[in-house]
Amino acid sequence: MALKITALTSVGLGGWYAGQLFEKWKHVQKDRDCQTSLLSEFSIERMPGLPIFGTVSAATPIGSNNNDSHLTSLSTSTSRTSQIMRFGFPGLDHVRSYDDFVLSYDRRNRIAHWVFEHLSKDNVKSNGDVDRSQCEFKPDKTIHPFFRSDNKDYKYSGYDRGHLAAAGNHKAHQKHIEQTFFLSNIAPQVGVGFNRDAWNKLEKYVRKMTEIYTDVYVCTGPLFLPKKEVDGKKYIKYEVIGTNHVAVPTHFYKVIVGQTKDCRLEMEAFVMPNAPIDSTAPLANFQVPPESVERAAGLLFFDKISRDKLSKINGKRVGWT
Amino acid sequence: MALKITALTSVGLGGWYAGQLFEKWKHVQKDRDCQTSLLSEFSIERMPGLPIFGTVSAATPIGSNNNDSHLTSLSTSTSRTSQIMRFGFPGLDHVRSYDDFVLSYDRRNRIAHWVFEHLSKDNVKSNGDVDRSQCEFKPDKTIHPFFRSDNKDYKYSGYDRGHLAAAGNHKAHQKHIEQTFFLSNIAPQVGVGFNRDAWNKLEKYVRKMTEIYTDVYVCTGPLFLPKKEVDGKKYIKYEVIGTNHVAVPTHFYKVIVGQTKDCRLEMEAFVMPNAPIDSTAPLANFQVPPESVERAAGLLFFDKISRDKLSKINGKRVGWT
Repeated sequence: MALKITALTSVGLGGWYAGQLFEKWKHVQKDRDCQTSLLSEFSIERMPGLPIFGTVSAATPIGSNNNDSHLTSLSTSTSRTSQIMRFGFPGLDHVRSYDDFVLSYDRRNRIAHWVFEHLSKDNVKSNGDVDRSQCEFKPDKTIHPFFRSDNKDYKYSGYDRGHLAAAGNHKAHQKHIEQTFFLSNIAPQVGVGFNRDAWNKLEKYVRKMTEIYTDVYVCTGPLFLPKKEVDGKKYIKYEVIGTNHVAVPTHFYKVIVGQTKDCRLEMEAFVMPNAPIDSTAPLANFQVPPESVERAAGLLFFDKISRDKLSKINGKRVGWT
Repeated sequence: MALKITALTSVGLGGWYAGQLFEKWKHVQKDRDCQTSLLSEFSIERMPGLPIFGTVSAATPIGSNNNDSHLTSLSTSTSRTSQIMRFGFPGLDHVRSYDDFVLSYDRRNRIAHWVFEHLSKDNVKSNGDVDRSQCEFKPDKTIHPFFRSDNKDYKYSGYDRGHLAAAGNHKAHQKHIEQTFFLSNIAPQVGVGFNRDAWNKLEKYVRKMTEIYTDVYVCTGPLFLPKKEVDGKKYIKYEVIGTNHVAVPTHFYKVIVGQTKDCRLEMEAFVMPNAPIDSTAPLANFQVPPESVERAAGLLFFDKISRDKLSKINGKRVGWT
């Protein structure tokens, strides 16, 4: 199905909103395998003045530890991106597409806005040859040097280099797990009680969802939440580390959609403080309405799924506000 | 000159960076009138998976107080955008194009990342009929309701609704000045000593640059700068106001390029704290290296101009670091 967009006509016509174009992309047709046929062919004829597509980029493949069977072909790579991003992009700021995850980069905070993964029972399995100890944290050279974080920024900061796309989700190929170690997929996390404990528990929970759902889509990112201070005013306050001023998020979120064998879609949303968390606290304590994450993050999650099409949100059948 | 981009080829080819596409756009040829011939015709054939152009939008025209002579025609509108953005977009997050300025919106902070204007001696003149008292601050309905600021957010906050594109720069048409009152072009500013004083002085200075330069390009925006606290760590801290949590920037910047009759390009960059400023402080006190603004804002200003092509930076012929 081809959609032809004459961009010149769109620009300058006052009644045209960003949203309308997305609306056109939202016509998603289910076939018997819950697959969607997305509109993938279109052309933009002229777009004077406004640049397009400048910041959506395939990231550099890492050169080492590849063998031919691990190299992703052109068509595999693009269709994998479509698969991961099937239910919409939360935002479009500096999008980078890797072999097994996709992220949007916040150049001001030197960390990602969001990282998107698609998990299934098969693709979270280790292929046996994969060796995490071979992986090294490394700067992402697809990011402009002004805005790129470095290992030095984290050194002596007291924070872990915490994964957004979890390393443990990408054990099917050595190349996949290695790409999760790009610092664009990393954010400063409290180690003991958070990254190594409660957050890790949440990551394992998400991975385990592949035993219940045929497809699991997970979006992970940082939050900077305000707090009321004694003067009665609300402030956002967060540390920045290293010479590159890498932002230390106050919280992290995960918004997850699981698709069942019979094509039902269920959503869960979690927010955890970037702080030591009592090891006895159940994960359910950290469930929040997805909309609250959207408002705080400035993002819209799974916007190709109308919320009233979800069977459950945070395990409940009832609607949410 | 036509540039054909086959996006499918680009995605998945590891060696391809976002920057490279921009490099292609950077071939700017000067003719005798200092005009540039930008590459404006291109087509993107297929781009499966990755959405493009979703957030670059012409904003809604305001319906009132127009007469036909003020209505911007399709071609005028697109060429005006090209003119304003002639030396490059600082970033591409949620770009909105108005009749006489262009902005990029930060959905998390509910204010703009940057606002771009092009000024000349003629276009900063009032046409006589223009009446500022007719203008009303109003929410920008092109922004999703989750991320839109409202007049109520500012009420009783103690902050002025400060213009980024200055109202005084857009007096050629009633419609132009009215569009500067969209709250997407507004940020919380300290009133006395800043918005009504030092910042206003800077705005007037920029307007006066049109007497020296044939064309003045000015980019204005907020900054959130870190401060070292007593624990020796650096923190970014800022207030958020209203139910929509509109961010109160710690500082504001202006980065300006003036083009002389003989085609020389001169840049100035200013950063001012969002605080009462001593009325005797000369503007030169607030000049900063442009790069320092870029690093702090997460933006690249005038990136179509190689910095070594500038005749002066902050009034000095010598290079900057």
